[in-house]
Amino acid sequence: MAGKRISRQTLLFDPPPVLEAAGAVGGKRELEGPLRDSFDLVTSDTRFGQKSWEKAETQMQQLALQAALDKASLRPENVDMAFGGDLLNQCISTSFGMRDAGIPFFGLYGACSTMAEGLTLAAMAVCGGFAGRAAAITSSHFASAERQYRFPLVYGGQRTTTSQWTVTGSGCALVTSGAPGPRITAATVGRVVDWGIRDANNMGAAMAPAAYDTIVRHLEDRGMRPGDFDAILTGDLGYVGRTIVEELFRRDGMSLEGVYNDCGTMIYDRERQDVQAGGSGCGCSAVVLCGHVYRQLLLGRCRRVLLCGSGALLSTVSTQQGESIPGICHAVSIELEGS
Amino acid sequence: MAGKRISRQTLLFDPPPVLEAAGAVGGKRELEGPLRDSFDLVTSDTRFGQKSWEKAETQMQQLALQAALDKASLRPENVDMAFGGDLLNQCISTSFGMRDAGIPFFGLYGACSTMAEGLTLAAMAVCGGFAGRAAAITSSHFASAERQYRFPLVYGGQRTTTSQWTVTGSGCALVTSGAPGPRITAATVGRVVDWGIRDANNMGAAMAPAAYDTIVRHLEDRGMRPGDFDAILTGDLGYVGRTIVEELFRRDGMSLEGVYNDCGTMIYDRERQDVQAGGSGCGCSAVVLCGHVYRQLLLGRCRRVLLCGSGALLSTVSTQQGESIPGICHAVSIELEGS
Repeated sequence: MAGKRISRQTLLFDPPPVLEAAGAVGGKRELEGPLRDSFDLVTSDTRFGQKSWEKAETQMQQLALQAALDKASLRPENVDMAFGGDLLNQCISTSFGMRDAGIPFFGLYGACSTMAEGLTLAAMAVCGGFAGRAAAITSSHFASAERQYRFPLVYGGQRTTTSQWTVTGSGCALVTSGAPGPRITAATVGRVVDWGIRDANNMGAAMAPAAYDTIVRHLEDRGMRPGDFDAILTGDLGYVGRTIVEELFRRDGMSLEGVYNDCGTMIYDRERQDVQAGGSGCGCSAVVLCGHVYRQLLLGRCRRVLLCGSGALLSTVSTQQGESIPGICHAVSIELEGS
Repeated sequence: MAGKRISRQTLLFDPPPVLEAAGAVGGKRELEGPLRDSFDLVTSDTRFGQKSWEKAETQMQQLALQAALDKASLRPENVDMAFGGDLLNQCISTSFGMRDAGIPFFGLYGACSTMAEGLTLAAMAVCGGFAGRAAAITSSHFASAERQYRFPLVYGGQRTTTSQWTVTGSGCALVTSGAPGPRITAATVGRVVDWGIRDANNMGAAMAPAAYDTIVRHLEDRGMRPGDFDAILTGDLGYVGRTIVEELFRRDGMSLEGVYNDCGTMIYDRERQDVQAGGSGCGCSAVVLCGHVYRQLLLGRCRRVLLCGSGALLSTVSTQQGESIPGICHAVSIELEGS
């Protein structure tokens, strides 16, 4: 057996699959942010040359896949399986993005946890011998998300201080075996966690309990402490959710100081960019992982990272029907050899 | 390695995981159809005691999971991983259904191919040693689907002859190893196929090319002919799509006669029930597999089945933006030992 379950939720991959290459694409606001240099492609044209924001999102996914393939000198035919999804109804960015690539495809819906979910499944597929090479891909777009989940942009609605800014971006990671590169050593599969938050403009608070649940499980199952990682990164809790996670760990007598951060707080400059509680969306953790974090790993500036993709599993209908917001979080451990 | 890839798309599972138990739940129209006796629970209350159709769909998933667990004398804690999704925006039926179960959860979006997609991933998880037992679960509901994709029911819009009737139902299958029962021996992972159909009221035609593509791939990769199966079942092509698949095979000089059928044509009585081109929806292939087909396998009346879950990867937005309808189809081979 290639997979080793050390608990109901936590898997060890042995031998660990390798993060062979990664591509990250971003839009105008991401170009203006502190991580601008970590993208393979950023543009101030948020339509990416397309006629609609939805088609722009498809285009971003195709560009992110191409960027990852180019770095490993590969073609779509060299990828045996793709795991991908997005935030749009019926995940059309991904389905239409995959139409041209022709890669055998598993569609996912994990809300903003999709990159971590896809990476976990890609690692399972490669480690289990079901794919020689697998891709994890996702995207989000500020304008298509606002239109679908909130208000038309031209309406100019005021945003609350706890609301988050959907990242315009797409990330694609290629996972294989027997290549050099950072390795996916373990993963913890998340459960749906709901602490009763009902404010759809405070997704960070809704997702924080799921992130806490999964991080605790991962650490306990592997007998590790936060300091064993160079970085523990949640996907898109933003400033509000990050604070909640820190407080939950403090309550447990554990400090995350110097180790923990959130991709949604890393991608924008809070002082200069008006993004309320930080970034969010499937693209948030995807571009931070496939851009900034992957580069840090390749440079050896960071040797052991726990990516904790967090997703809020609501819809406008569930909110209108008075439901609270369930969250989920999948954690993927990425390490350099000998860490 | 537990997985054996015989092509880029086709996997053999060795040893094959077992379909340990299955649960099927249906609504009023399903109760009136020819497969009524194969459900574990059917009710004429299409709200399933809930306040909304969306909550009814969540309730159906919980009942299908419970039915499957009961048959194997199991509890949710005995399931290590669930793979599930549905047709509603952001897949809320499944996310909310999984909230109480607490099972580590991978959310899927494969449109109506979700049961075959989930079964493939559950088989990979069990065969690869990543889960001791995995569940595949999905649902659809006529009323929630009409509201979301088409018109309010009270509007009383006229339906075209090629339109299909979304099945109100949920199916759940439990996959494990080392138990008696029908075995998942192989699977073919689908690619996105688009032959340019633009009529959102003719999903059967849109999905048929993907089904044809995957069935041909599966047969060729395993060196089999249609007659090697007792039944090749597409998920929900209905009468129109089924005819197209038959014609495509006829063009290739291959007959599907006596072997091929479509779950969407099996679930309703076309003469007595006014369902236009047949049944559709995630729940269609799910309840036919978890109800009728699973019973036929247990009784030995059928020994080798190829379930080909077909999905139309469109959204109302993609149609409004003039896009054609991409399709996908995943095939799962289920066989009795010694077949």
